[in-house]
Amino acid sequence: MDEHREISIAEFFEKNRHLLGFSNFQKAIVTCVKEAVDNSLDAAEEEDILPEVHVIIEDLGKDRLRLTFKDNASGIAKKHIPKVFGKLLYGSKFHKLMQSRGQQGIGISAAALYAQLTTGNPIQIISKLKGSTKVHAFTLHLDTRKNEPEIIKEELLDTYEFPHGTSIQMDIEAKYTRGTHSVFQYLKSVAIVNPSAKLILQEPDGKIYEFPRVTKDLPKKAKEIKPHPYGVELGILMRMLKETKARTIGSFLMSEFTRVGKTTAQQICKAAEIDVVNGIRFVTGWERRPNTLSKDDIERILRAMQTTNIQNPPTDCLAPIGEELLNKGLIKELNPEFSAVVTRNPSVYRGMPFQIETAIAYGGGITEGRLMRFANKVPLLYQQSAGVTMKALKSTDWPRYGLKQSGDLPQGPVLVLMHMCSVWVPFTSEGKQAIADYPEILKEMKLALQEVGRKLRTYISKKRKGQIEEKKFKTLTAYAKEMVEPLAYLVETTTKEDISMYFEALLKSKYTMIGGVAIDNETLKELQKEVSQQEEENASTE
Amino acid sequence: MDEHREISIAEFFEKNRHLLGFSNFQKAIVTCVKEAVDNSLDAAEEEDILPEVHVIIEDLGKDRLRLTFKDNASGIAKKHIPKVFGKLLYGSKFHKLMQSRGQQGIGISAAALYAQLTTGNPIQIISKLKGSTKVHAFTLHLDTRKNEPEIIKEELLDTYEFPHGTSIQMDIEAKYTRGTHSVFQYLKSVAIVNPSAKLILQEPDGKIYEFPRVTKDLPKKAKEIKPHPYGVELGILMRMLKETKARTIGSFLMSEFTRVGKTTAQQICKAAEIDVVNGIRFVTGWERRPNTLSKDDIERILRAMQTTNIQNPPTDCLAPIGEELLNKGLIKELNPEFSAVVTRNPSVYRGMPFQIETAIAYGGGITEGRLMRFANKVPLLYQQSAGVTMKALKSTDWPRYGLKQSGDLPQGPVLVLMHMCSVWVPFTSEGKQAIADYPEILKEMKLALQEVGRKLRTYISKKRKGQIEEKKFKTLTAYAKEMVEPLAYLVETTTKEDISMYFEALLKSKYTMIGGVAIDNETLKELQKEVSQQEEENASTE
Repeated sequence: MDEHREISIAEFFEKNRHLLGFSNFQKAIVTCVKEAVDNSLDAAEEEDILPEVHVIIEDLGKDRLRLTFKDNASGIAKKHIPKVFGKLLYGSKFHKLMQSRGQQGIGISAAALYAQLTTGNPIQIISKLKGSTKVHAFTLHLDTRKNEPEIIKEELLDTYEFPHGTSIQMDIEAKYTRGTHSVFQYLKSVAIVNPSAKLILQEPDGKIYEFPRVTKDLPKKAKEIKPHPYGVELGILMRMLKETKARTIGSFLMSEFTRVGKTTAQQICKAAEIDVVNGIRFVTGWERRPNTLSKDDIERILRAMQTTNIQNPPTDCLAPIGEELLNKGLIKELNPEFSAVVTRNPSVYRGMPFQIETAIAYGGGITEGRLMRFANKVPLLYQQSAGVTMKALKSTDWPRYGLKQSGDLPQGPVLVLMHMCSVWVPFTSEGKQAIADYPEILKEMKLALQEVGRKLRTYISKKRKGQIEEKKFKTLTAYAKEMVEPLAYLVETTTKEDISMYFEALLKSKYTMIGGVAIDNETLKELQKEVSQQEEENASTE
Repeated sequence: MDEHREISIAEFFEKNRHLLGFSNFQKAIVTCVKEAVDNSLDAAEEEDILPEVHVIIEDLGKDRLRLTFKDNASGIAKKHIPKVFGKLLYGSKFHKLMQSRGQQGIGISAAALYAQLTTGNPIQIISKLKGSTKVHAFTLHLDTRKNEPEIIKEELLDTYEFPHGTSIQMDIEAKYTRGTHSVFQYLKSVAIVNPSAKLILQEPDGKIYEFPRVTKDLPKKAKEIKPHPYGVELGILMRMLKETKARTIGSFLMSEFTRVGKTTAQQICKAAEIDVVNGIRFVTGWERRPNTLSKDDIERILRAMQTTNIQNPPTDCLAPIGEELLNKGLIKELNPEFSAVVTRNPSVYRGMPFQIETAIAYGGGITEGRLMRFANKVPLLYQQSAGVTMKALKSTDWPRYGLKQSGDLPQGPVLVLMHMCSVWVPFTSEGKQAIADYPEILKEMKLALQEVGRKLRTYISKKRKGQIEEKKFKTLTAYAKEMVEPLAYLVETTTKEDISMYFEALLKSKYTMIGGVAIDNETLKELQKEVSQQEEENASTE
C-alpha cells in the first residue's frame, strides 16, 4: 500500500512505446521520420518559408540506423531546444486551436526517447533561429524518471547549411525497408499533399531521391481561432471562468469565444437567467463578475451557449491544399491517366471547423485499388480499416461510378485520396492513424466521394464509348477491305482503288485516330471543349 | 515560437479522453465501472479478502448518472487517497512486475477526470483501512493544469458498511443501457472469471442483480518478480546501472534480475569481456563497480545477457483462474450444454511470464457464436477484431473440430473464452482492449484452442452419432409397424402382436431411450464411464 508513487509520462511511454508508433523496427523508423518532417513543415509554413527537408539514413550495423534531418525552417529558440526534444508533452501547439501537423507535443521527444531506449545514444540538435546569427548545438539525454532533458553538451557552431533551420541526429534500432509502409512511401505521400515542399531522401546505400516541389506558391497560412461555444464542456468552461482576466461574464464570453459579439453574449446571459444573485437583480447577468457564479449558474450558461443560435466558426483558420495543387501533386508523384479532385466547403463538428478534400485517380501509374489518407497534410499509414474514412468508402456505391466493389475498397486501377484538415483532428489513438467517426465528418467525406465519383463515371463511360467506337472502326475497316472487290464487281463503274478511298474517307469523316485509338468526332469535340475550359480556369487561378 | 509550454498529463487526457475509453456515453459508464471494480478486486486479492463489490447506478436526469461503488477490500491509506483519485499516473502497480488488473495508475483518476469534465461535480471517497478504526472521507477536484488533486472537504466518519474497504461516488454524463457493451454484461463477464467474487448491481430503476460467488477458495495470489535478462533494453539497463545500490556488477546482476545466480552472473561478465579497464585487468569483470562501466561495456553486458543460456522466469508470479473454477464460473453464468476448459502451462514472451486459459462452451444457454476475451481477469469489451486473440481464432481450423466457419468466428451455438494472465499484458492501446501480437502468445493461444477444440469435437461427434442412431431407431420403429402385417401373413405361424413385440424387444436390446432420445447402448456405456471418471476426478480435487 505504501508503494504508491508518481509515474512520469516519459516512464509511461517508455513502457508503452507501441502506443506512439514504436512497436516494431519497421514502424519505428517511419514514425521518427514522420515526427521530424511534420515539425519541419509546420515550422517552415508558420514563417512563410518554402520548405526543404533532408532525410539522411545511415546503417550503423546490428539493426542500428543513424537518422539525420536537416531543414531550412525557422529554427528553435535556444531556451526551448532542450525541452522540445527532451521532454514529453511540451510544445507550442497543444493549447492553440490551429491547423497544424503536430498537435500534442509528444512526437519528436518520443522519437528521442525511443533512440535512447534502444541505442543509449544521446540525440544531437543544431539550430539557427531565423533572424539570429548564432548556431546552437546541443547533445541531449532524457531523464525519464523526471521527464526532463539532461544537457550533455552545449556549444556554438560557426555555420549552418541553410540561412536558418534545425538539424537533428538520432541513432535508433530499426530496419530500413522499401514497400508499402516505408520511409520512401511516406515521403512520396508527403510530397503529394505538400506540393510546395522539396524533400530529399538519402538511403543507407547512398542512393538519393528527390521529391521536387511543383509550386513556389506557399500554402495558405492557418490562423489560430478561439473555441466555439458549441464545442465547450462544463469542466472546461468552469476552468476558463476561473482563469479568465475578464471582469464581467459578458466580456468573458466576447473575449474568449469565437463568434460571440455583444448581441450573442447578451442573448446567452439572458437565456442563462443569471441576473439575480443574493437577491440583487442585475440589469442583465452581463455585468456579473465571473468569480461570483455558482456551479448552477455556470451550468445554465453552458446550456444557454449550446441552445443560442450562434454563427458557425470562421473558416479562415483552415488551410486546405486546394484542388489545383492537390491535383498537381498527384500527377507529379503518381502520373495517373485520369484524376479528379474536390475541396469541399468547410464544415463544423462539435464547434471545430474542418474541411474535406478528396481525389480520385485512375489508370496510368496506378495499377491497383488503393486508399491514401491524410490529416492536416500528414499521411496516415496504419489502421487503414479503422476510423471514419473507411466507413465513408464502404458506404459509397462504387458500381454506380463505374467501379467494381468487393471487400472494402473499389476495385481496379483506382486510388482514392482523402484529406481532412481541422484545428483539431479527432484521432482514435495517440498513434494518430485513424480519424474518429463523427457524423458531420462522415457526411462530408461521403459527399466528397460522390462528387469525385461522378467525375470518374463520366470519364470511364467516355472511355468505354471510345473503346466501342474503336472496335466499330476496326470492324468496319476490316469489312471494308473484304467488300471492296465484290462491290467493285457489282458497281463496275469505278476501280477498286476508288471504292477503297471512298470507304476510308467515309470512316475518317466519322472518326479521328488519336494515338492509335479511334474516337468518334462528336466525343472528340466534347473532350476538346472540356480541355480548353480547364486550361482557361487554370490560367485565371494562377 | 515563445508560446512553448508544458502540458500536464491531465490536460492531455482531458483533450484526448477517447483514448482512455470515454469516447461516448455508453462506453463512458462501462469504463468507470471497470476501473472501480478492477481496483476493488485487486485490493481484495492482495489482502486475501473474499471480494464483495456493490455498483449502484442512479439517474440524475439530463443524461447524468450517479455511480456509487462500495467494496470490502483493504481500504486506502489516508495520505494516498487524494493522489490515487485526483492525479493521473500515480499508483503502486506501474513500477512492479506483478499480475494485476490495473497496470498504469491512470484508470480511476481518469474516471474522476471524466466526471469533473462532464458534470463539474467533485468525487467523494470514503475509505477504512484494514487494521484501522478510522473512516476517512474526502471530496476531491482534479487540478488539470497541474495534474494534482484539490481537496475540497476532508472529514472523519463514524462508520463504514464493511469492516474495511473503499467507497467512491462520482457523477458522470452517460447513458445506462443493456446489451452487449453494457455494465450488466461487463459484470457478468467479471463474474465468470472471478468465481470467488460477489458482485451486486443496482440499476437506475432500482432493480438489483446479484452475481454470487461459487467458491470461497481465494484465487492463488500473484507474486511480484524481478525482470528477466531476456526482456531488458539498453536504455533501461543503463538506468538500472545508474540507480542501483549494488557495489559490483556481479551483485547488480544477481540482485536486480530473476534467474541470475552466481554462475549465470559470472558467465555474463565473462561473455561481456568487461575485465579490462584503463589497462587494469580484473579477475573477472564481476568486481567492477557499476559506475565505472562505459557505454560500450554496458552494450556488451546487454548482448551477453541476451546470449547466455538463462532459465525461464519463475511462474509462481502468475495466478490463472484454473480449469475447475473457470468451468464453474462458465456454467453458473451461461449454463451451456457442454464445456471444456484448458489452462496451458506458463510460457514466456520477451522475458515476461504469461499463461493462457481457454474455454469452449456449446449449446444450452449459448445461442450464437461468441468470443469473450480477458486479460488478468478483466473482460475486454471493445476492439474484438484487433489483436492477437482474433488472429488465433482465425487461424484455427474450426471445421476440423465439428464447427462451421464463416467470417472470423466459428459458427453455431458456441462460445470461445480466452484469458491471458501475465505480469505485463502488452495492450495495443491505453483503452486496454486488445492484446498485441507476439508470436509466443499467438502460439499458446492456438494450442489452447486446438486442445479445447478436440474435446468439443469428441462431444459433437458423439452427439451427432446419437442423433443418427435416434433417426435409425425411429425409422426402424416406423417400418416395423408397417411390416408387421405382411410379415405376419408370410410367416403365418405367429400373431401380429407377437411380431410387434419381437421387433420392439430387438430395438430395445440395441438402443436406450434417454429423455426422448435414442442412444445406442455402446455409446451409452462410454458416456457413463466418462461421467464416473469425471466425478472421481472432481471428488479428488475438491
